[in-house]
Amino acid sequence: MNDVVVAGIGQTPVGEHYDISIRELALHALEAAMNDAPGIRPQALYIGNMLAPALSRQSHLGTLVADFAGLRGIEATAVEAAGASGGMALRMAYLAVASGAVDAAAALGVEKVTDQGDADVESALATTTDSDYEAEHGLTLTAQAALLMRRYLHEFDVPREGFAGFAVNAHANGVHNPYAMFRRAINADAYNRAGMVSEPLNLFDVAPSADGAAAVLLVRRDLLPPEYPNPLVRVAGSSVVTDTLALHDRPDPLTLTAARLSSERAMAAARVSSEQIDLLELHDSFSIYSVLALEAAGFAARGQGWQLGQNGRITLDGELPINTFGGAKARGNPGGATGVYQLVEAITQLRGAAEGNQIEGARRALVQSFGGPAATAVTHVLERDWEPT
Amino acid sequence: MNDVVVAGIGQTPVGEHYDISIRELALHALEAAMNDAPGIRPQALYIGNMLAPALSRQSHLGTLVADFAGLRGIEATAVEAAGASGGMALRMAYLAVASGAVDAAAALGVEKVTDQGDADVESALATTTDSDYEAEHGLTLTAQAALLMRRYLHEFDVPREGFAGFAVNAHANGVHNPYAMFRRAINADAYNRAGMVSEPLNLFDVAPSADGAAAVLLVRRDLLPPEYPNPLVRVAGSSVVTDTLALHDRPDPLTLTAARLSSERAMAAARVSSEQIDLLELHDSFSIYSVLALEAAGFAARGQGWQLGQNGRITLDGELPINTFGGAKARGNPGGATGVYQLVEAITQLRGAAEGNQIEGARRALVQSFGGPAATAVTHVLERDWEPT
Repeated sequence: MNDVVVAGIGQTPVGEHYDISIRELALHALEAAMNDAPGIRPQALYIGNMLAPALSRQSHLGTLVADFAGLRGIEATAVEAAGASGGMALRMAYLAVASGAVDAAAALGVEKVTDQGDADVESALATTTDSDYEAEHGLTLTAQAALLMRRYLHEFDVPREGFAGFAVNAHANGVHNPYAMFRRAINADAYNRAGMVSEPLNLFDVAPSADGAAAVLLVRRDLLPPEYPNPLVRVAGSSVVTDTLALHDRPDPLTLTAARLSSERAMAAARVSSEQIDLLELHDSFSIYSVLALEAAGFAARGQGWQLGQNGRITLDGELPINTFGGAKARGNPGGATGVYQLVEAITQLRGAAEGNQIEGARRALVQSFGGPAATAVTHVLERDWEPT
Repeated sequence: MNDVVVAGIGQTPVGEHYDISIRELALHALEAAMNDAPGIRPQALYIGNMLAPALSRQSHLGTLVADFAGLRGIEATAVEAAGASGGMALRMAYLAVASGAVDAAAALGVEKVTDQGDADVESALATTTDSDYEAEHGLTLTAQAALLMRRYLHEFDVPREGFAGFAVNAHANGVHNPYAMFRRAINADAYNRAGMVSEPLNLFDVAPSADGAAAVLLVRRDLLPPEYPNPLVRVAGSSVVTDTLALHDRPDPLTLTAARLSSERAMAAARVSSEQIDLLELHDSFSIYSVLALEAAGFAARGQGWQLGQNGRITLDGELPINTFGGAKARGNPGGATGVYQLVEAITQLRGAAEGNQIEGARRALVQSFGGPAATAVTHVLERDWEPT
């Protein structure tokens, strides 16, 4: 397999983009990534998206965006794996470049949902569950997360307030992220007083659906122009693992098997252990998934992931920084684009370009996207490929 | 890149499967392909599908089907490129195996549409156009094809009856295909008398929307078990090229640029010229696309593709057999599955297992899927990798 590095990254602000179409939103991110990658043009484009066919009445998104971006003629397709679509787009771009089929490929995530009512969005999102057995009975993604969190609190005798640290950390990290939807810090008290969305999930446990687009342009390392200006970041490990789609089919719903295997395999491919990971970008569509992901990947023992949220351990200067630009909670959660935002943020860290959010000396990041309750888990390990002078 | 060969193939009958769910339909094809591939299990599953989110209220199809098929844990995702989704699924499986990321990967196409009314299906299909500018104004896929055919008849002074050969050939080839939806031959007279769907397209110019699923299991050639029972077929060339999504953005709508480039590149990768291709599986959702594809790929000069339909030249014993199991017209057109059916049929030919439909001595096949009016063109060249005794 060819060595694959990041040539360029781009993102749009996350929020309500009612004034532009989905193709324009996608274009802004793709153009930003191409402008960031002098001399590199993608020969293939993989688009992570969940809801455009339902909410924008537009499918065939790969060709639409390639055409609109002035890349007419290149290979293009949409890929869909629910909330993991963005991570999956990078996986496809990685395979295309690693195989040698193309020299450079772009992974783009785009989602546009705020033109529609909340009920329509929740209903469209529910098609990502095991629809005949879950959505049909009202088990939306939010309801799934609420059941899991309730079970967790019960099983391990954790107070609901024990989850506050994840929301507090996310909102603190979002303050200096110019692309974030919410840029105000909250404290544990605000978390504890927040209204319930679906008990025991409160407002700050739930990442807000939003519009956004982000792009990562990959290239074969041996084909980089000489004296390439960007600090290099390498895709060191890539793994996709699935679990049962339905929550009720799992022997233990609090064990995210796909997340565990995917983390292990991505780290094994990168030849690193969890101790060598300097920061995590986790799928925090709901706080409970951050907690369970930490346990699945071996960063915490079963039933103890929530404790990492205590005492600043996951903050920017903590022992294990998580979601360093605010995560889905503060940056916002643009569905199929979220995975690509996570990657862009981790790459920014590994380039040493995170400014006020910089993790000192960051060398390796683990970036993980979930489809549903980690029914699909996509994990990438990214590695700094330059030495600070 | 690793050498990639076909380990197994499977398909369900095409038709109305109102008695089973989309996951069961997919399972039947995938199981058939796995049963056909002793000792080989896919580590990745790529699903081509267009309309399940809209018509079955089910997305996240990769994980759903992997789970239901007893392949829990493998990599899986859905890919969508309109009518080219099935071909694109094979492209992804090919990249995954060629890169070395996995040893074996399955491409599955599945579509289930007949539970819904025709208007709902046509409307869902129209989301694959440049929706804001085409579908919004009533320009459905059928209307696009009608405009193109009318333009063709006008530009090259061709009688409408000149298209009869394509429908006659398809229906003749469907007779002995046990998976085909329509298994009765028609003659030119029946074609000429058929009712209009969207002038000048008549009933026999339009492939019927249908339910179906088909699967191809690919494996690294060097990892095949010894004395593998199936005659080997190699993926010799693979290419995806896009064009403008909107028809009105093209300088000459009768030139399918993406189809031309994709055919050329797939043949170049396979190191063959068009004279060395023994059979074609073309995207005949509408007759006009077969005609334009023949011209684009260099099998006929501009304005003369329709003449290949005359005098038995494209029949099973003609000089250039096309759609040897009935094409979308007689087999039926299960949207995102169609591309995989085309591949399964070509592989059956190259295995020498086509029985009454066998092309004598078939060594190389070109298989091409279109999304919309060849806005996406996916082309594979398959090559026989065994010698008849």
